[in-house]
Amino acid sequence: MDISIYQDSFHTYLHAQDLDREPKNLYQPMAYILQLGGKRIRPVLTLMAADLFSGNYNDALPAAFAVEVFHNFTLVHDDIMDDAPLRRGATTIHEKWNLNTGILSGDAMLILAYQYFENYPPAVFQRLAKLFSKTALEVCDGQQLDVDFETRTDVSIPEYIHMISLKTSVLVAAALKMGAIVAAVSEEQAQHLYKYGLDLGIAFQLQDDYLDTFGNPETFGKQVGGDIIENKKTYLYLKTLALASPEDAATLQELYAEKRTENTEKIATVKAIFTKNNIAQHLQEQIALYTQKAFENIAQLTIPSDKKQQFIHFGNNLMSRDI
Amino acid sequence: MDISIYQDSFHTYLHAQDLDREPKNLYQPMAYILQLGGKRIRPVLTLMAADLFSGNYNDALPAAFAVEVFHNFTLVHDDIMDDAPLRRGATTIHEKWNLNTGILSGDAMLILAYQYFENYPPAVFQRLAKLFSKTALEVCDGQQLDVDFETRTDVSIPEYIHMISLKTSVLVAAALKMGAIVAAVSEEQAQHLYKYGLDLGIAFQLQDDYLDTFGNPETFGKQVGGDIIENKKTYLYLKTLALASPEDAATLQELYAEKRTENTEKIATVKAIFTKNNIAQHLQEQIALYTQKAFENIAQLTIPSDKKQQFIHFGNNLMSRDI
Repeated sequence: MDISIYQDSFHTYLHAQDLDREPKNLYQPMAYILQLGGKRIRPVLTLMAADLFSGNYNDALPAAFAVEVFHNFTLVHDDIMDDAPLRRGATTIHEKWNLNTGILSGDAMLILAYQYFENYPPAVFQRLAKLFSKTALEVCDGQQLDVDFETRTDVSIPEYIHMISLKTSVLVAAALKMGAIVAAVSEEQAQHLYKYGLDLGIAFQLQDDYLDTFGNPETFGKQVGGDIIENKKTYLYLKTLALASPEDAATLQELYAEKRTENTEKIATVKAIFTKNNIAQHLQEQIALYTQKAFENIAQLTIPSDKKQQFIHFGNNLMSRDI
Repeated sequence: MDISIYQDSFHTYLHAQDLDREPKNLYQPMAYILQLGGKRIRPVLTLMAADLFSGNYNDALPAAFAVEVFHNFTLVHDDIMDDAPLRRGATTIHEKWNLNTGILSGDAMLILAYQYFENYPPAVFQRLAKLFSKTALEVCDGQQLDVDFETRTDVSIPEYIHMISLKTSVLVAAALKMGAIVAAVSEEQAQHLYKYGLDLGIAFQLQDDYLDTFGNPETFGKQVGGDIIENKKTYLYLKTLALASPEDAATLQELYAEKRTENTEKIATVKAIFTKNNIAQHLQEQIALYTQKAFENIAQLTIPSDKKQQFIHFGNNLMSRDI
């Protein structure tokens, strides 16, 4: 399957939106971040879900755009919280403008996302906006847990999976379900798609964690090693801690208890301990597990099997990505 | 008229809401700011509008709560942007917790506000949520203009009125209109109430500007002189600049071009120039003008005249407040 038709339609729609509004200091940062690109995974999922259920993905463009605007809102505010200098290879908004612009443009993006649901009739509008609010609040919960985990030393792997499922998966799941809602699919069918998204989202985030540490700095777009700098207790860290020798575990814990201004050595030491414990292999097993679990939900869909295959194909492609 | 029945109902509703949720670091700041009190002007207006049109204000409680939660979200993020230490006499969230908590709890409050509209059937939900999104985005526009004006030296009085109408009035107007929407009032009638709120909101903000500089530090709740410290080009400043001697005008402009760490002397000098130019009298004239303009819309309402009187009474009371 070729997702580029969805990507192209999405970009055409994006560029047709009028963000050249006053006050410029509020809307220019929005246009800036939205035009930085990215893989557009979430809006593509909304369009794909609508297409595979109804054969019409154009109707889903406003919902897809809302999802992408919301996702970008979370990036803008998360980048402030993580004090991140780079996003998709470009300067983050709070660095390029300032803190206040980052906060306020982010707020406006969250509101703008809701406005795109106004393109739908009342019953669909309410279904979409309800799912969106529930999802958005869960994403905040996940972000707060992520922040809380930075200073906690007793985070378990199930707690970590719960956190990433809130911070990342629920939006992937909601993006798919919104496509189904626009296609007027039954709640039961839409829910299978939602569950597919939940597990796929976890697999996706585990892959993202891997790339954050082992990705290619030339193509990754973010600062490689950012999670290590921020002491994020990712699966890489938590699983290595469980597998490593007492000495290595102690070293890891010490390194994750401090914040440094110069991180080259810290990143190198942590990566070496990760590698020594074959973390890549363990992680790939987990990714395969969640991807498989995601696919089980596709079997429950009442669409032709060639359409089911497209969801499988998408999942497999997503997991083999290196950016 | 006694607005305390609306205030009491609102507080009963507020205290019945479950904000004791996980993660605590996300929801405790929300509960903290919502329970700090304040005059509850906006939710009272929602309840009053519903009551005077339909005789039933209980149905409007979720909408009133949404408005108050949104208003508090703006306070949390504005306090970060203004680096304000106090709100309603208590420590601001970003000071009591930290910057990230202020950003994220604020985000979650914005989403929570939308969720309260889910208490209404689809058509009412869409009408409320549309008005809410439009209003919320205008409030962001107003906040951005407010920030922009701090570094501009050519702000005119009409530009200032436009800014406060976005930053403050549209929410007062929307609060009233939401009460009318819940009471199933026609769009035309609801719009008269909206316009009443727009002008009342301007009068209210002009009064607020006065109190920010000349209010009683014991009862004001915020830092008295905060606008002077932040170089806010309020009506007090802009009108004084037009009236003052060339020497005083030059002094004002110089003082508003710099930021200081110690502000006692700056505040005293500015207040002295304001007072010398009878700014209180000019301001009271403007407040009377906008209040009068607001009242003209009440004449257009198709409700009994004793009910119209309550909107007039409310406006007069609001303008004679000293806190």
